[in-house]
Amino acid sequence: MSRYPDGVSFVRVIALGGVGEIGKNCSIVEQGDDIVVIDCGLSFPNEEMLGVDIVVPDFSYLIENKEKVKGVFLTHAHEDHVGGLPHLLRDVSVPVYLTEFTHALIRHKMEERLPNKKIDYRIIPAGEIVKVGSFAVEFIRVTHSIPENCSVAVNTEHGYVLFTGDFKLDFTPVDGKLTDLKRFGEIGEEGVVLLLSDSTNVERKGWGPSERSVAEGLRKVMSTAPGRVLLTTFASNIHRMQQVYDVAKETGRKVAVVGRSMERNIDICQSMGYLTIPNGVGINLDEAKTLPPNEVAILTTGSQGEMLSALVQMSKADYGRLQIKEGDTLIYSARPIPGNEGPIWRTINRLFQLGCNVIYDSPLPIHVSGHAYQEELKMMINLTKPFYIAPVHGEPRHQFLYNQIAMDMGYPAHRVFTLEAGVPLEMDEKNARLGKAVHTGVVLIDNSGTPGVTPEILRDRFSVANDGVLILSIAVDTLAGEIVGDPTILTRGFHGSPGMIERAQDIMTDAISSLKKEEIKDLDRIRNDATTIVKKFMAKSGKLRPLIVAAVIEV
Amino acid sequence: MSRYPDGVSFVRVIALGGVGEIGKNCSIVEQGDDIVVIDCGLSFPNEEMLGVDIVVPDFSYLIENKEKVKGVFLTHAHEDHVGGLPHLLRDVSVPVYLTEFTHALIRHKMEERLPNKKIDYRIIPAGEIVKVGSFAVEFIRVTHSIPENCSVAVNTEHGYVLFTGDFKLDFTPVDGKLTDLKRFGEIGEEGVVLLLSDSTNVERKGWGPSERSVAEGLRKVMSTAPGRVLLTTFASNIHRMQQVYDVAKETGRKVAVVGRSMERNIDICQSMGYLTIPNGVGINLDEAKTLPPNEVAILTTGSQGEMLSALVQMSKADYGRLQIKEGDTLIYSARPIPGNEGPIWRTINRLFQLGCNVIYDSPLPIHVSGHAYQEELKMMINLTKPFYIAPVHGEPRHQFLYNQIAMDMGYPAHRVFTLEAGVPLEMDEKNARLGKAVHTGVVLIDNSGTPGVTPEILRDRFSVANDGVLILSIAVDTLAGEIVGDPTILTRGFHGSPGMIERAQDIMTDAISSLKKEEIKDLDRIRNDATTIVKKFMAKSGKLRPLIVAAVIEV
Repeated sequence: MSRYPDGVSFVRVIALGGVGEIGKNCSIVEQGDDIVVIDCGLSFPNEEMLGVDIVVPDFSYLIENKEKVKGVFLTHAHEDHVGGLPHLLRDVSVPVYLTEFTHALIRHKMEERLPNKKIDYRIIPAGEIVKVGSFAVEFIRVTHSIPENCSVAVNTEHGYVLFTGDFKLDFTPVDGKLTDLKRFGEIGEEGVVLLLSDSTNVERKGWGPSERSVAEGLRKVMSTAPGRVLLTTFASNIHRMQQVYDVAKETGRKVAVVGRSMERNIDICQSMGYLTIPNGVGINLDEAKTLPPNEVAILTTGSQGEMLSALVQMSKADYGRLQIKEGDTLIYSARPIPGNEGPIWRTINRLFQLGCNVIYDSPLPIHVSGHAYQEELKMMINLTKPFYIAPVHGEPRHQFLYNQIAMDMGYPAHRVFTLEAGVPLEMDEKNARLGKAVHTGVVLIDNSGTPGVTPEILRDRFSVANDGVLILSIAVDTLAGEIVGDPTILTRGFHGSPGMIERAQDIMTDAISSLKKEEIKDLDRIRNDATTIVKKFMAKSGKLRPLIVAAVIEV
Repeated sequence: MSRYPDGVSFVRVIALGGVGEIGKNCSIVEQGDDIVVIDCGLSFPNEEMLGVDIVVPDFSYLIENKEKVKGVFLTHAHEDHVGGLPHLLRDVSVPVYLTEFTHALIRHKMEERLPNKKIDYRIIPAGEIVKVGSFAVEFIRVTHSIPENCSVAVNTEHGYVLFTGDFKLDFTPVDGKLTDLKRFGEIGEEGVVLLLSDSTNVERKGWGPSERSVAEGLRKVMSTAPGRVLLTTFASNIHRMQQVYDVAKETGRKVAVVGRSMERNIDICQSMGYLTIPNGVGINLDEAKTLPPNEVAILTTGSQGEMLSALVQMSKADYGRLQIKEGDTLIYSARPIPGNEGPIWRTINRLFQLGCNVIYDSPLPIHVSGHAYQEELKMMINLTKPFYIAPVHGEPRHQFLYNQIAMDMGYPAHRVFTLEAGVPLEMDEKNARLGKAVHTGVVLIDNSGTPGVTPEILRDRFSVANDGVLILSIAVDTLAGEIVGDPTILTRGFHGSPGMIERAQDIMTDAISSLKKEEIKDLDRIRNDATTIVKKFMAKSGKLRPLIVAAVIEV
């Protein structure tokens, strides 16, 4: 049993990621000698994290307490909830609990990313209660933009800690699988000590539209577009794709699929019964070419402007298998993930230039969010009647606004928490308080898959990205205490006024040539002197701050 | 007179920037031996232009034809219409026609940027017709988010070429200065051969709200906020600031200003009568500190998340003159310029974390656009009845949508043009056609103010930003044909798996050591061999593509 210094037992909840940010969701619940982990996601680098491929939480706390960690529960298969898993499992061996669908969607990716490890998957359906250490844990079905999405209720000795996960309350879901409102109500009755709620869409008033409403927009476009209709969405949005197939059948079109991840997901979902392709509606690209354009629809990846995606290559007229032509229509059935706006708009603009009409911001419903709006968030609070509340899956502004709403609903400020990564929320029978932060942070993973890109590395990259790099190339005879040959400055990515480099070279050569023999024998001294003088010159004469590297060779 | 090969005379319109993009507006009208230039703007670098400060059009065509260039007309003082001027005037001496307000706002900046040149300003009011070469040119008053904004009508031998410039049709402008609808109607009667229309907001249906409507939102916030109210907007949005002063007076607040550009603009506008500060409402920051918080309003720069702005520094609790505290409210009275979203949201999030409530996306009117919505765009077409139409100030999607609207209004496709930079639209008495492109493009200007950042420089910066730089440091005795000392690899901004660099160093050393004496005497050979082998190793063993620089010294 975890105890305060005064002897009272408590339950701790720590977010290792996903609070104060949207991305890399990962939280833990700790009680005595047991820890369960809820989700294990990644996030994408912001524009300051140059050359970083993905970002995962720092799992030090879990590694230090690895014997306590009894299970990881994955709410659904989106990367911001599962993408960090290989990096945790590399150091901590622990069973992974997930639904059958989540398992089917992620297992190939996990094998690719962690090839030498057999992962102990435990497939459980929503509604089944699993004993994990001293906890009883269950998935509760809730709607989102992916099938078999779940909330996680962790029954602790002080009541349920309920993670909504990503959710919306869609009363007409495409697969007919409804949110288990009754179960939320039941655990509300039993006693939810803490609700950790999705807050991503807290800025939006009212109720979000049902996924099913998108069919209306699709129907309008697919029945009136003069030529082919292309549609891009996230490769995991199976319900969206189901609707494209259904509306295609209605409107006399056949559907081809372009893009590896989408093709793979469609195969998986079709074989498992999560996607039903009406008879004869699914075709391949070669078949599509034999049909009149107004009988063709094409599903494609690339909704985030990914450089190597089919859509981006098509927009550059650089995709061998399919050429965009005048009269085509693209439905942009997605939303830009922040940071991707540039490449997405450039792609859309290029499509227009090829004569393709792009429907991207339409009064027609062509995309809906998978996250709850304000009234849905309130309903979740009403149903589950938590004692404490803390928004997750939100930036500070979302947390702030969510807490405003909770307080407007009557929650006193001391029952509403703004969590920060690593800071435990400790709850005993009577109180809750924020405890002392555990070690946490971010681990930056580079393009080779190696974790640990440091702030120093980013600083150097930033310097070069701005003003290039100068390489001071100096050969020294350390026995004689002499500069050998001509010191030179090589530049890459540098751009300054004409003659700047020549002048810098002269100044540097003068400075190091005037050193005494003993000083010249000290390579650090030469490195330092040369770097300093060139740096000052650059700042003074051109307001430039290139990276300066002294390559001093001992000969 | 310009003539086609068949002898027919024509007028040419060429956009050097501002078509297929929003930014660096600059167009020319050419007839015989005369050219007039309309606007001369800059744009901001996109995320691929690493280390670029600003982007201006390539003015080669104007430089080659400098004796023809008779005048530059500036529609208003925004950077995307005036910021390229110093770079044109450096090479082409030409009178600059502008209104008194535009002159007042830009002249200090122009002096800073082009210190050694006396600019020949010709201040003219809207409505005055100026003879420039064979053209008669006039400004026509039209509303926008800055005072004294104008359209430009260039009377050519085939009729008026009308540049709307940036505009909206605001029937209740804050300064009471109405759009000169009558004059637009008159030149429409006289004959507009070509309308070049703003198309930035063509995606928005209906009519845009009046600038004056913002007062309602300001009033609501300033009368109810419990503490200080800060407001950030563009430093040139004088009408917005006027309303802040007026509403402050109404609601019992006094206004202090923070941020150099805003303070300067307010001084200029007040002294010229463009801004009226109600008696006693303007205070300085020290005075603000002595007042109860709910009697204070603060105007501040930083609406684009600029790193050095007052607001960003305040959000980091790093601004000596003013500390954000719980109970403060910030009105974000602006819109993110694409590309600035990251820093802006981080600033807003930090403000929330300091306990400041930020109103940024409100049902209240707290910001309105300065650009015309669909119905306003249509009204401009109705008033001016142009024969040909071409949207400007838009990306390809805006051009496409604008042209759709024109065609919906009855324009046949051959009278509607999608301009590209550098491609002349040539009009004679009977026809219009796109001619052969003149030399154009972009000039990238670095942080030191030096133009000419090349694609090669950007490529190198991109390589380093992604995967760092490796410096192969090799000393060669070219007389003896020997490698001297130990070849080494220095890295900066590089991150790979452990031991990678050591292995690369071994492979490189083996390769160059096995060269024959004659080959070693060839420094290019060594550079090339070393670079190639390291590059291959990096790509193969880590999927990395760092920049590789061979610093080979001859000793």
